[in-house]
Amino acid sequence: MNAAVSDIRALVFDAYGTLFDVAAVRQACAGVMAQPDAFVALWRAKQLEYAFLRSLMGRYANFDQVTYDALHYASAATNTTLSPEQRTALLAAWYTVAPFPDTVPALQALKARGITLAILSNGTPAMLERLVQATSMDGMFDFLLSVDSVRRYKPDPAVYALIEPALGLGRTQVLFVSSNGWDAAGARAFGLPVCWVNRAATPTDQLDQPPTYSISSLAELPALL
Amino acid sequence: MNAAVSDIRALVFDAYGTLFDVAAVRQACAGVMAQPDAFVALWRAKQLEYAFLRSLMGRYANFDQVTYDALHYASAATNTTLSPEQRTALLAAWYTVAPFPDTVPALQALKARGITLAILSNGTPAMLERLVQATSMDGMFDFLLSVDSVRRYKPDPAVYALIEPALGLGRTQVLFVSSNGWDAAGARAFGLPVCWVNRAATPTDQLDQPPTYSISSLAELPALL
Repeated sequence: MNAAVSDIRALVFDAYGTLFDVAAVRQACAGVMAQPDAFVALWRAKQLEYAFLRSLMGRYANFDQVTYDALHYASAATNTTLSPEQRTALLAAWYTVAPFPDTVPALQALKARGITLAILSNGTPAMLERLVQATSMDGMFDFLLSVDSVRRYKPDPAVYALIEPALGLGRTQVLFVSSNGWDAAGARAFGLPVCWVNRAATPTDQLDQPPTYSISSLAELPALL
Repeated sequence: MNAAVSDIRALVFDAYGTLFDVAAVRQACAGVMAQPDAFVALWRAKQLEYAFLRSLMGRYANFDQVTYDALHYASAATNTTLSPEQRTALLAAWYTVAPFPDTVPALQALKARGITLAILSNGTPAMLERLVQATSMDGMFDFLLSVDSVRRYKPDPAVYALIEPALGLGRTQVLFVSSNGWDAAGARAFGLPVCWVNRAATPTDQLDQPPTYSISSLAELPALL
């Protein structure tokens, strides 16, 4: 499928890692332990792995639970003892991660051109609502879509299938935007045009689903359309 | 479900990491690059991630292809240039990984008691056949089961569902044995009794599916039954 850029009426963004910088979670970890980098990398890796595995097993639990379970594993694996208050503070960090510096200017430029803006995230509806409120972006998005309604995680096609009925648009009219290579591949496999925001200059994931467009920052997005 | 140990008539083993030590792949890498440890860790992580993702996306490619694709990514991500001959040699290492020191004695003891032995692996049928031939274990197994016939990867329940019809046994008569926490959880979620071989003394994965039994080496397996 070759979608023409001129057909695009809406942009649907991944949240964590694409619009929002999970570095805030690292900062929260740095407040309670000596070596936050390895810890947060393990926590994030297990969070994603558990989401994938639960979807594969048909044993959905929401992203709050998966994040909690991954924290439990990371604590045990690194012999990091956390008090209940510290655990609560670390989990709360996922609700208040800050947007990347390029996020708000890019969204404002796109919004001014009348383009529909939405989020499609593994996060729960409550996470997404608090996330946009905490970052004063509540007026920016027309739709906040969570995997929670289908009880499967990206890159299951059932997740990307939420977009068309919610937005009332066909799949060639929507550009899906993600920094996560596996998410970009999943949306492509479903049939959406995809813009991969390759923030970390990593190689393309070898999943036979190369992105339609690649950019290195959201700042390049307005010029693409 | 509480399966009685006395009901167990067959043992079904995971291959890579459970019976066979993927350290041989590290050795092959050490022959062609300066820092094999980080490389092989990334290669293995991507191999598993791609298997999970392809199953989630409904875009199966066999384990040869997934292993090749993961090698491609690992090479690009680490700026490791491989000649075609080196690439072929690294891929071939997956066909000749050696059994752990505890593997053959445990299998011989179980075999002598008339217990049915089988493998259920993400590997292709050709990989499994060459693997048991290369290690002189071809007479040991009654069944070599590959995910390839259902074109999904563990921990998709469709994979574990291969066991009962192939062996002609009910699920309480089969003990599934794996060193991979996600595989042990997947088999438990399907409803099999599971023995987790926790070789690396890692924490239990937090997937709400704790193993029925935990051991640290296959040497403990004959005494369990």
